[in-house]
Amino acid sequence: MDISDWRARIDTVDQIIIDLLNRRMNYAQEIGHLKDAKGQQVRDPRREREVIERLKAYNQGPIGDEAIADLYTRIIAEARNLEGEKP
Amino acid sequence: MDISDWRARIDTVDQIIIDLLNRRMNYAQEIGHLKDAKGQQVRDPRREREVIERLKAYNQGPIGDEAIADLYTRIIAEARNLEGEKP
Repeated sequence: MDISDWRARIDTVDQIIIDLLNRRMNYAQEIGHLKDAKGQQVRDPRREREVIERLKAYNQGPIGDEAIADLYTRIIAEARNLEGEKP
Repeated sequence: MDISDWRARIDTVDQIIIDLLNRRMNYAQEIGHLKDAKGQQVRDPRREREVIERLKAYNQGPIGDEAIADLYTRIIAEARNLEGEKP
């Protein structure tokens, strides 16, 4: 395998990651609709912290836990924006 | 489906995302070894920009392109760190 072969693998994995991130956002939007129907706040800081702590515990590397925390802080912020959008 | 059901789905997707991110980092480390053997620099800003532009073009939403760019800037930074580590 040469560099171009590994890059092709990375490109394939990246597209799957984008697909899964979008699926995650769709689920967050479903939660947003349910919260809206119940009159609940979109933001749930305890749940947000739990998600990040659980994923850091799940992570076996090589990606660092600090990167996991940074990425999920951004992912959760985007989910919160999308949850807050009215259907 | 209630909020807890959607959250369980999110948790499952998140674990798969972490697995794929780690797989991506393993591939990046393979590239790092090949570059090291060839005496090439780890950083390749043109490739980094291309990755982000291609993924923004691939993205169909609901996640925003700005979030894609932010996330991949962080992912590529982590890959670069790991590529630079000697085996």
